[in-house]
Amino acid sequence: MRSPILDYLDTLISETDHISSGEPADYIPELAAADPDKVAVALCTVNGTVYASGDADHQFSIQSMSKPFAYALAIEDQGLERVRDLIGVEPSGEAFNELSLDPETGKPRNPMINAGAIATHALIASEGQSRVERVLKFFGSLSGRTIEIDEAVASSELATGDRNLGLAYLLHSSGQLAGDPQESVTGYIRQCAASVTVSDLALMAATLANGGVQPRTGERLLCRESTRHLLSVMASCGMYDAAGDWLTGVGIPAKSGVAGGIIGVLPGQVGVAVFSPRLDGHGNSVRGVEMMQRLSEDLGLHLMEASRPARSALRETRIVSLEGRPATIYVLQGDLVLSSIEALVHELIQSPPTTDVVVFDMARVDEVLPVARRTSSEMAAKLLDEGHRIVIVDPESMVEDFTDSRGRGIERWSPERLESALA
Amino acid sequence: MRSPILDYLDTLISETDHISSGEPADYIPELAAADPDKVAVALCTVNGTVYASGDADHQFSIQSMSKPFAYALAIEDQGLERVRDLIGVEPSGEAFNELSLDPETGKPRNPMINAGAIATHALIASEGQSRVERVLKFFGSLSGRTIEIDEAVASSELATGDRNLGLAYLLHSSGQLAGDPQESVTGYIRQCAASVTVSDLALMAATLANGGVQPRTGERLLCRESTRHLLSVMASCGMYDAAGDWLTGVGIPAKSGVAGGIIGVLPGQVGVAVFSPRLDGHGNSVRGVEMMQRLSEDLGLHLMEASRPARSALRETRIVSLEGRPATIYVLQGDLVLSSIEALVHELIQSPPTTDVVVFDMARVDEVLPVARRTSSEMAAKLLDEGHRIVIVDPESMVEDFTDSRGRGIERWSPERLESALA
Amino acid sequence: MRSPILDYLDTLISETDHISSGEPADYIPELAAADPDKVAVALCTVNGTVYASGDADHQFSIQSMSKPFAYALAIEDQGLERVRDLIGVEPSGEAFNELSLDPETGKPRNPMINAGAIATHALIASEGQSRVERVLKFFGSLSGRTIEIDEAVASSELATGDRNLGLAYLLHSSGQLAGDPQESVTGYIRQCAASVTVSDLALMAATLANGGVQPRTGERLLCRESTRHLLSVMASCGMYDAAGDWLTGVGIPAKSGVAGGIIGVLPGQVGVAVFSPRLDGHGNSVRGVEMMQRLSEDLGLHLMEASRPARSALRETRIVSLEGRPATIYVLQGDLVLSSIEALVHELIQSPPTTDVVVFDMARVDEVLPVARRTSSEMAAKLLDEGHRIVIVDPESMVEDFTDSRGRGIERWSPERLESALA
Amino acid sequence: MRSPILDYLDTLISETDHISSGEPADYIPELAAADPDKVAVALCTVNGTVYASGDADHQFSIQSMSKPFAYALAIEDQGLERVRDLIGVEPSGEAFNELSLDPETGKPRNPMINAGAIATHALIASEGQSRVERVLKFFGSLSGRTIEIDEAVASSELATGDRNLGLAYLLHSSGQLAGDPQESVTGYIRQCAASVTVSDLALMAATLANGGVQPRTGERLLCRESTRHLLSVMASCGMYDAAGDWLTGVGIPAKSGVAGGIIGVLPGQVGVAVFSPRLDGHGNSVRGVEMMQRLSEDLGLHLMEASRPARSALRETRIVSLEGRPATIYVLQGDLVLSSIEALVHELIQSPPTTDVVVFDMARVDEVLPVARRTSSEMAAKLLDEGHRIVIVDPESMVEDFTDSRGRGIERWSPERLESALA
Repeated sequence: MRSPILDYLDTLISETDHISSGEPADYIPELAAADPDKVAVALCTVNGTVYASGDADHQFSIQSMSKPFAYALAIEDQGLERVRDLIGVEPSGEAFNELSLDPETGKPRNPMINAGAIATHALIASEGQSRVERVLKFFGSLSGRTIEIDEAVASSELATGDRNLGLAYLLHSSGQLAGDPQESVTGYIRQCAASVTVSDLALMAATLANGGVQPRTGERLLCRESTRHLLSVMASCGMYDAAGDWLTGVGIPAKSGVAGGIIGVLPGQVGVAVFSPRLDGHGNSVRGVEMMQRLSEDLGLHLMEASRPARSALRETRIVSLEGRPATIYVLQGDLVLSSIEALVHELIQSPPTTDVVVFDMARVDEVLPVARRTSSEMAAKLLDEGHRIVIVDPESMVEDFTDSRGRGIERWSPERLESALA
Repeated sequence: MRSPILDYLDTLISETDHISSGEPADYIPELAAADPDKVAVALCTVNGTVYASGDADHQFSIQSMSKPFAYALAIEDQGLERVRDLIGVEPSGEAFNELSLDPETGKPRNPMINAGAIATHALIASEGQSRVERVLKFFGSLSGRTIEIDEAVASSELATGDRNLGLAYLLHSSGQLAGDPQESVTGYIRQCAASVTVSDLALMAATLANGGVQPRTGERLLCRESTRHLLSVMASCGMYDAAGDWLTGVGIPAKSGVAGGIIGVLPGQVGVAVFSPRLDGHGNSVRGVEMMQRLSEDLGLHLMEASRPARSALRETRIVSLEGRPATIYVLQGDLVLSSIEALVHELIQSPPTTDVVVFDMARVDEVLPVARRTSSEMAAKLLDEGHRIVIVDPESMVEDFTDSRGRGIERWSPERLESALA
Repeated sequence: MRSPILDYLDTLISETDHISSGEPADYIPELAAADPDKVAVALCTVNGTVYASGDADHQFSIQSMSKPFAYALAIEDQGLERVRDLIGVEPSGEAFNELSLDPETGKPRNPMINAGAIATHALIASEGQSRVERVLKFFGSLSGRTIEIDEAVASSELATGDRNLGLAYLLHSSGQLAGDPQESVTGYIRQCAASVTVSDLALMAATLANGGVQPRTGERLLCRESTRHLLSVMASCGMYDAAGDWLTGVGIPAKSGVAGGIIGVLPGQVGVAVFSPRLDGHGNSVRGVEMMQRLSEDLGLHLMEASRPARSALRETRIVSLEGRPATIYVLQGDLVLSSIEALVHELIQSPPTTDVVVFDMARVDEVLPVARRTSSEMAAKLLDEGHRIVIVDPESMVEDFTDSRGRGIERWSPERLESALA
Repeated sequence: MRSPILDYLDTLISETDHISSGEPADYIPELAAADPDKVAVALCTVNGTVYASGDADHQFSIQSMSKPFAYALAIEDQGLERVRDLIGVEPSGEAFNELSLDPETGKPRNPMINAGAIATHALIASEGQSRVERVLKFFGSLSGRTIEIDEAVASSELATGDRNLGLAYLLHSSGQLAGDPQESVTGYIRQCAASVTVSDLALMAATLANGGVQPRTGERLLCRESTRHLLSVMASCGMYDAAGDWLTGVGIPAKSGVAGGIIGVLPGQVGVAVFSPRLDGHGNSVRGVEMMQRLSEDLGLHLMEASRPARSALRETRIVSLEGRPATIYVLQGDLVLSSIEALVHELIQSPPTTDVVVFDMARVDEVLPVARRTSSEMAAKLLDEGHRIVIVDPESMVEDFTDSRGRGIERWSPERLESALA
């Protein structure tokens, strides 16, 4: 049985088939020669399932879509503060061919424009290999396969790299470039020539959607803070110079590349990638932008709308006999975020447990945000204080132990013990 | 038992008590005379529960925090297209005292700066009353109590309104102002003089967090699209001219007022409001900004991080005997959004039901996004096509009826019928 | 016999007859209804001779050409420092419909754009009459005839004055407007509606060319410093936003009006005025700009080229017998400026006078700049010091008396005494 | 006997002796090590007389004062149109460390900022030698002595040339640079390291004041049009970013260099140069600016005031007997510009000659502008037409021959013939 999601992606392609305006990038022969009718779309969930349609195996150069990932890597290597010192986070608000350097400091406005991306590349720690090798390995970890450079694209870009050299020398002269200008530009151009498919990109984007953890390998490639920061920057600086237009209309943190690709990330849900080589005046894929708009609308991916967490962390409440004593069992579920933990706490206060023993069964809980960890500890302390005995079933040790002022603490039971006690 | 959330808000106030830099706004005596040590914070969930601490009953003028609500009202009245024609959505990227009119069109850059807010006010339909009365009633519906104007503030502001008059005449001359300049400025200034508490504001903000539905009355005050659009604009234009700074650092759609208030909205979760009269050079409350940053960090409210929907819509799967025939029951829960419906569909395809009868129990489902409605219908059609009989328990009629090409359709059962059939 | 200069002006009109692009200003009916084929040119020397050709008696509204004269009047009334405090002198470098207010101070960039001209008008001292009456009287003194307001134009402009009102309120709010916003705009609009001919304008411009002295009446209407300052501002801000374009290409301090007039001033030589109602996108008369370019080229009026003072102040040197003693008579002529006085001094040092008596005959000298007054005094002192007896024939008392340390001084003779002594 | 002009320059130095604010440029050791107390001033007339005071023989690097001369050379080599295509003429109106490239075209705003000066250098024709050699030879022709490079300065600048390299690569990428980026920057930096004295600079500036003719050698080094264009650009772009400030306050086309020099040009009169190494925040010599302001004020050099041509070209009118026939002799003098020729024509029309024979004695005329040549020919034609016989004494062939429609022409006599005829 074919997934309705695949059916939808097929429809997306067929319904945008009429869009033939724009032209492939023409500043190097390798991009100009692209088949303008190639088209592909892929979607990857935070569970790692990839759905793809169209020319999903077609490889093209990643170009500027490499920028967000290189930026995240630079933050991991140097820390956010050092990176922020050298590169801004403001939308440029200027024509796409502007230099976008702060007139006073010479600082690039953001890491999504070329000047910022060159400065970013120079911040990547080389760790005994070339920076480009390191970036490629990182792309490999994100996409789950070996990523290689399209050498023809790289050579051509290097031959027309005057503008990037100009930016690099300016950055160096104002102290914003951590590396040698020529070397940084060469490395940056090779980074942009990495060859990918929409499926690769969707998985890379899904890693961002998943808070930095590669959904298939489960490997944490970026810390939560870097990921969150990067997504904010993509939301305001990733597309168009007119930040508000994209944020209001499409509402997905995104980044386009001049070969025709666009990636988008809906935090907590999916990564998407589209491809079609014909570009508009901003350098974005015409059909790609249309596909992104439809994806946002059809799949409810707009940042300001998509976010609808479970209303309650409380799956069920049961009063049982536990090892011969009456007990109230609260079965929790899902992610414990502010709104879900608030609902639980609200319930406990409105209808306090009537039994001495209170059990919180967290076996079905996926993730506990700091706010929930803290709040649940405080709630437990209050219950202890009122004379309750607290049992927690927390197989993944999501909440910490603690004892109150009178030396009383929570008890930890394994799920098996709870099961046998209930039996 | 006191809620740990209230405890947290108390702590927030005490831990920011050392912040005494900045000065109350001094351009009118009424603001200059504000007690600079007043401080308050309130948080309201999408269920309508309000938690407040500090001087929570202290009234102050809403000032620029009126802008987002008036903007939403104008969109409801005129449609988004008409409003977009007259007012932009781009961050100004300029000093806070800039005019922020587009040099070519004379169009205000966004509705959060004064020029845009005056143009906004003039777009509100008066409907047989003054525009100000209409706005006040709207504030009343949002906050659940009668909101009145602080006439002393209004008179003082009117007496120093030259700059706003200047903006209004310029807007009128370039065709961006739908009303008379003098009248529009008077109305706008009175709108800003509406008197509110942090609790009022938190509930107003929670209505935005709740997609436009007032959490307590359940009344839909704004459509989803207006709300989504407004929140996008607040995210990029609400605070600071440096949009990227706020979006990366705090990550909450927000708006400040010159009397010292700030509201913030985390879509799907909470509305928050803080108050402290001392302002920084941007005209934002110094302590208020610090409280917002802590709220974001402590409560996990950053837009790019907070969004963690339930991983699966599938609460449980049971194989039972139903009216004598083996049946598979899928018990669904929570909100059906892309990622949750995808997980369900994925499960159904990987492990197709082995019984003829398939039951989807949606009694515990909170909301169904269009993407989920469409996908579930398509999935049902595929199951019908493979010969299954489909029963839906959908007491709130969240999915539509349909029949496939051979005239077969889904059956709708009430929860009671399912219960008795299982018994 | 007809003057070749008149012939030239006739030719200028006939050779620009093919220019028919552009349209009369259309924002008020009175300007839109102008006969687009009217054309006129006038030239006035610093001696007050006016040459005019075409529709030289046709009256039209002065519009923005009133700005430089009002600015000079404001400087006379308030002093340059006060005026500079409120109004800048920098070219706007922006589209002609920009507000051109300094983003930090709210100060208009220069007095030739509307904001600056409104601020200028408000600085004119009313002296017991309305500001407009005062301005009209000043225009009358400049042009040598009574100047009146075209009331139809004034009323129409007032009815569409929203933009000017907007500017005036903004100026008032930032403390840049010395008067009431409504009154200042009304006065400014009436000032712009003054009705003039090209001959009036050429005479007005010639007053500026003549350093502030009306060439016909000989009345000093503006001090030298105000005139010099005004001409500098006209050179950089009078036409186009692209200051360098006009300065390099035409090189004449100038100002255009939206009714189709343009005035130009070549310091020390002539004032010119042209008229043709069809405007280009900058709001300048298309044919008028062409005529100004030809006038500059054909008549050698470019500021950087026109300036060719007499190479020597020394008309002739004669050795004569004066009252029985040998004497050297130096006959001076023209204007004594740096280069001419330097040439004289150089001659005196290279070939010192061989007679005891030295006579400087200044009867033919037109004007003595401070530099020449000072240098000639110093030179005289040196000659006295070397034992010469110095006689000065200085009927207009251009140089001051002085005595050297030994009490010796210069002798002053009347021209008649010199003549009879020579006889 | 010492010239009062030298005395004045001495005074200028002693009266600015108290100015000690600012610091020498410190970005290379060679400039940082400059003796900050060195000071010099020189003035050169259009006759080539140089007056200098202070450390007049002290050599320092020409730096940005090389820009105007290189620009003039590029215009001579490539034509104005080609140069204008690549380099603008607008004041930058931006902070002095801005890139000042047009955001749309990548074109440098003007040739006085670094980007424009690098583009300028690349436009100089090398003519079988290096561009730098050519520039040095040109500096040599202008200053009348061999000019050499300070190699220590050149090497140091090259070592810190990243910013210039950045600009050059950017220019090259947008097609604004006619040469190789590395080579252009090297050449430009060496051009700036040329070693000069204030006397050299004053003579170079005087060549500009003299319309492009070196005053001492009489060699035309630049055509009038290039010179005029260059002076216009210096007037608006040479100093400060605030063009209006310099033009209104000092009013002399000028250019400063970072080693502490400033040159100024008063067209038709003088070139001046000052030197003092301490710089202000704009990179201009603090004491140098003060000296320029005083020179302008004290010597009457303000562009809008200095220009005071002789009021009449007519030295005297005599009625004599010439070869037995009554004749009117008009003795002309000085430069024939618009205002002087107008006065002559005016006189001829008001008081037409009463004799058949009319003689124009042009032996004392210095220069004839095209306007005067044309006007005088037309005047002669009119006189011929009225039956006069016209004799011209024009030893330097300043006016052309012509015959009227009836074949009559002017007669040319040598000065000797006139003299013997009069005798």
